[in-house]
Amino acid sequence: MTQMSAMTAAPAGELPPGTREHLRSPITQAALRIQNNITIATRDYLGGLGFQELTPPLIGPVTDPGCRGAKQVDVDYYGHKYKLMTSVILYKQASLLAFDKVFYIAPNVRLEPLETATTGRHLAEFTQIDVEVAEASREDVLDLVQGLLRHVVRHVLHESTVDLMALRRNPEVFEPMLRQDFERMTHTQAVARVRGLAQDQSTDAEINWAGEKLISEHTDRPFFIVDYPKGSRGFTDGESYTEPGVLRNFDLIAPDGFGELCSGGERTFEYRRLIERMRETGENPAKYAWYLDLAREGLRPSAGFGLGLERVTRYLAGLDAVWQASAYPKLPGIASP
Amino acid sequence: MTQMSAMTAAPAGELPPGTREHLRSPITQAALRIQNNITIATRDYLGGLGFQELTPPLIGPVTDPGCRGAKQVDVDYYGHKYKLMTSVILYKQASLLAFDKVFYIAPNVRLEPLETATTGRHLAEFTQIDVEVAEASREDVLDLVQGLLRHVVRHVLHESTVDLMALRRNPEVFEPMLRQDFERMTHTQAVARVRGLAQDQSTDAEINWAGEKLISEHTDRPFFIVDYPKGSRGFTDGESYTEPGVLRNFDLIAPDGFGELCSGGERTFEYRRLIERMRETGENPAKYAWYLDLAREGLRPSAGFGLGLERVTRYLAGLDAVWQASAYPKLPGIASP
Repeated sequence: MTQMSAMTAAPAGELPPGTREHLRSPITQAALRIQNNITIATRDYLGGLGFQELTPPLIGPVTDPGCRGAKQVDVDYYGHKYKLMTSVILYKQASLLAFDKVFYIAPNVRLEPLETATTGRHLAEFTQIDVEVAEASREDVLDLVQGLLRHVVRHVLHESTVDLMALRRNPEVFEPMLRQDFERMTHTQAVARVRGLAQDQSTDAEINWAGEKLISEHTDRPFFIVDYPKGSRGFTDGESYTEPGVLRNFDLIAPDGFGELCSGGERTFEYRRLIERMRETGENPAKYAWYLDLAREGLRPSAGFGLGLERVTRYLAGLDAVWQASAYPKLPGIASP
Repeated sequence: MTQMSAMTAAPAGELPPGTREHLRSPITQAALRIQNNITIATRDYLGGLGFQELTPPLIGPVTDPGCRGAKQVDVDYYGHKYKLMTSVILYKQASLLAFDKVFYIAPNVRLEPLETATTGRHLAEFTQIDVEVAEASREDVLDLVQGLLRHVVRHVLHESTVDLMALRRNPEVFEPMLRQDFERMTHTQAVARVRGLAQDQSTDAEINWAGEKLISEHTDRPFFIVDYPKGSRGFTDGESYTEPGVLRNFDLIAPDGFGELCSGGERTFEYRRLIERMRETGENPAKYAWYLDLAREGLRPSAGFGLGLERVTRYLAGLDAVWQASAYPKLPGIASP
């Protein structure tokens, strides 16, 4: 049991130790082995469904416009102003011109506000499993997320037994999610539930972190929140044709306070709607020339999602902080390799 | 045969078409499916040997110092001057503090000179299969590269039959590499061979492209050039203890003019040697603080390699240009998604 006694978790709010200590830590090593099994299971599951994996770009003329509160990083690319990827969402949509089902396991950088450094939930550099399916509805994608996450959990329970035990993660916590469908509630229902738990929550914004945590502490498995109001998200999230103002999108929230794992939904893809939504969300269409050129000649309708790899690792491994799931954690505002 | 007639190759020096045409091209789609099978086979082979895959970083305080002729891209990371990855070599070496065998399939950006845009061999954004093994010798790694490439070729021949046929790539060209060991020649022998083929070549520099192409046109399978002279490479390539001035490194060159696929070797890892080699190669040790801090307390001796994914795809698929193996090719100096 000497290994187990070395496995003390990071107290909330604690920052990572130096590189050597972090890499030598049995917690880091166990978390990264579990993470490796998560990506293996993801590729196995999506590959089996006929998905084409693509290599992720690092930079582009534009990137995901919808990263709330986080800043993008500029790069000078042969005199052109490019951005580091905050997500590959525009590339996912475009790639459906070549393949019906695509995914990326892609590194991203988002300059999150400095005060998020010690939340345990934020990394400035992180990895996203980014999936997109042509002609799919949001409901198709909810089923896909549930199927993928269950496959990943089963694989990790089977292949990472020793590491889970060393991290003192009880495999029984995953039984409800393997047995019962993930609950689906609308944003309106989630707001009511948060208010019922005596927490303040606006009806036309994201469910805030405190509210998310409250709901998640009252569930035994991940759950979906669907139908966010239009003002709360970027132009890529598709608006309902029958209920204007309601987005055909979703978040997936983990139980036990592990927070948001995944966002997704149907996409805006029609040229005129894209222009309209860009204007509504304060984005300048001129910046999106290559993407809008494709849309003018026709993008395919689609739905998809982005699943945070370090967040899923944290949830499966039962880690206190998301930085424990990164070999070289970059926390907002902190210079590190 | 309608599909085959659509499969005309890109004439040398040609630039990619627009995004839609490129993504809709049966050549692009076939090349990307083959590439997907290359990464599947790579993960399968290295995973079977006990390698740990790690998620690649996009940025760091420093990056690979040894990218000849290409410029690095600066990014402002919360007021700190960071670089886009040109390769994950420093991270590979450091990660051996956690695992004995690691690999990354990592995106990189190198601002190659403008005149390389039409060589058919250069992309400013590309993907590298980056492998590192603790306590390994160069010879161990030569065997590993040969084993990996053969496994990949066998997998692609088996799984991508239709795509290879559509691209008119004759599977028989791979028979010699599957049957016979890859030839290993020293840099000195390679220089003599190039000169014997009536091409100018300096004795203390890289074999130039024309020379590489000449040798490669006289072989039927990939071959290794080993023992480059010290002046030709960056500080990471380990110097021989018994033959000062000779590096314990290698390049792997494909036959039929497909050019360099892979570089690697034993690494410089001792603190004093690192400082010495940094100074010799004009690098400022102060920039490498995090890496040198690790080296001062001890990095592990290791050997490894970086295999260019788009170049391997080009070789296996028999493509005219490396940009045909990228969904969103970024050619030096050309603004594109």
